[in-house]
Amino acid sequence: MRSEAHFLELIDSHFSREHDFLALGRGDDCAVLRGGTDYCVTSDLFLEDEHFRRGYFSAADIGYKALAVNISDIAAMGAKPVAFTMDLMAPADLPDTFWDEFLKSMAGLARQNDMVLAGGDLSRSKRLGVSITAFGAPGATGFLRRGNCAYGDILFTVGDIGLARTGLMALEAEGIKARETLPAAVMAHLRPKPKVMIGTLLNAAGVKGLMDLSDGLARDLPRFTGPDLGANLTIDPEALHGDVHAWCKKAGLDPLEFAVLGGEDYALLGAVSPFDAGKARSVPGYTEIGTVTREPGIVLNAKPFDNPGFDHFSQ
Amino acid sequence: MRSEAHFLELIDSHFSREHDFLALGRGDDCAVLRGGTDYCVTSDLFLEDEHFRRGYFSAADIGYKALAVNISDIAAMGAKPVAFTMDLMAPADLPDTFWDEFLKSMAGLARQNDMVLAGGDLSRSKRLGVSITAFGAPGATGFLRRGNCAYGDILFTVGDIGLARTGLMALEAEGIKARETLPAAVMAHLRPKPKVMIGTLLNAAGVKGLMDLSDGLARDLPRFTGPDLGANLTIDPEALHGDVHAWCKKAGLDPLEFAVLGGEDYALLGAVSPFDAGKARSVPGYTEIGTVTREPGIVLNAKPFDNPGFDHFSQ
Repeated sequence: MRSEAHFLELIDSHFSREHDFLALGRGDDCAVLRGGTDYCVTSDLFLEDEHFRRGYFSAADIGYKALAVNISDIAAMGAKPVAFTMDLMAPADLPDTFWDEFLKSMAGLARQNDMVLAGGDLSRSKRLGVSITAFGAPGATGFLRRGNCAYGDILFTVGDIGLARTGLMALEAEGIKARETLPAAVMAHLRPKPKVMIGTLLNAAGVKGLMDLSDGLARDLPRFTGPDLGANLTIDPEALHGDVHAWCKKAGLDPLEFAVLGGEDYALLGAVSPFDAGKARSVPGYTEIGTVTREPGIVLNAKPFDNPGFDHFSQ
Repeated sequence: MRSEAHFLELIDSHFSREHDFLALGRGDDCAVLRGGTDYCVTSDLFLEDEHFRRGYFSAADIGYKALAVNISDIAAMGAKPVAFTMDLMAPADLPDTFWDEFLKSMAGLARQNDMVLAGGDLSRSKRLGVSITAFGAPGATGFLRRGNCAYGDILFTVGDIGLARTGLMALEAEGIKARETLPAAVMAHLRPKPKVMIGTLLNAAGVKGLMDLSDGLARDLPRFTGPDLGANLTIDPEALHGDVHAWCKKAGLDPLEFAVLGGEDYALLGAVSPFDAGKARSVPGYTEIGTVTREPGIVLNAKPFDNPGFDHFSQ
């Protein structure tokens, strides 16, 4: 990076300053989001050696995924992304070509979703890191919250479970060679597709709630149903992606357990009343995985599933 | 940090989830800011060894200042802070007592300003770091932008210039001993007081624009007036804080040049039409420093001031 001023020019060359939802764009002490609508707000870190490695994430992959993980949270509210701010931690030695690819890729994803970059901050740092806060406007029925499940509701997912984790494991074990051996899994990890359109359709179809499966089904499902309810799941291992099977065979793992532990899937988990499920069933990718039970805990294919998955800070 | 779940409980013990400006608080994929008003939005990084050192910043100082620098940007919009999100990069080895003090201090400042913590993210990191995005609601005349200056406008500051930089220099040179030798300067660096009330009063007094002096007067003034105008400044060195004089005498520096280069002052710079200055003059701390000129560039006490100050990324 040559100078802060030069970098800000580079940002301006990739990102417009104007948007219907902005009363004031970048360049002042604050940006101003236009009133008249509620905004949903989410914030996510994307840090070198914690969430990505430069060994197998290209500049374009990093710029893309840092924004994608935030858009995924907005999709899980059944909302429409509109704007974001970016705090960027940047090693001084990365060349202009790196930043150009990083920003171009991020700007492409922003443009696909009609999002404006509203502001942010820039600081030197030994390791690369991105902190993004993103804003969304409500969908057809407002925002889709968690915690509205009732006994008997149908649970469903949209998107592959376990596929991104397969990509992560393969990249960690084999490096960029994994791009060829398990291409779908690797792309699910490097370039997750936020399900904005699907979230909007499910919102309009009257589902009761949606959630981003970023920590894996086993950890996220109890957060979704709340502590007083549980889930009875029926998942056919054959329905898992071929890359998940290929990896688990190689690594000697049970593919179903692996997929349910998951992590970083950026698939959606949702609940719908059985009486209202008609429209939701027509949404592309909608897959029923079970029902909400009166007893807390997860039962998977008639057996209790007790593995809670991974906590970054637990000893 | 014992576990992510334990840390989230600690956050809940310090920060309420409810606020008039929140339709939905922490715990879902997103929080929801209530519509009906414009929101100003700002985002700032606060990183170990770039913006603070653990050698002389206590846990309470770090928690306080990470939020204060964001509130300062909102004050510079003449706005009222209402909410914030926090992305926290946390070394795994910091004890519960550290986090308790960090959060208690941040929560105290949030409570003083009636702000709610709306959400965020948590990740492991070798170095401590905080990325905060803060939201504000409009003051009496809306938001105070930059770029409205005209030839002949009066320029003014509120707050000491050069004092925080004195504190930084002294702490870097002398460590925590500086807390005793230059207490006001050290506190200006460790615990800057965001000028929310002053910003609100200046907004109601009809000033044309305000700006947060976080990069020092010499760098920030051209950003404030825009590239087509300049400033003719008259600053009496005697008006600078005694700690600035004491430090500059010791270090063999010119106190006025040092103060104008400044940095991290979190003082406010503003402009007001000479015909409307009456009310602004009654605001506590209001100090006229010069007028807007037709020619770009800064003239200080009748001499051109050409030192542009420091760029983190310039070689």
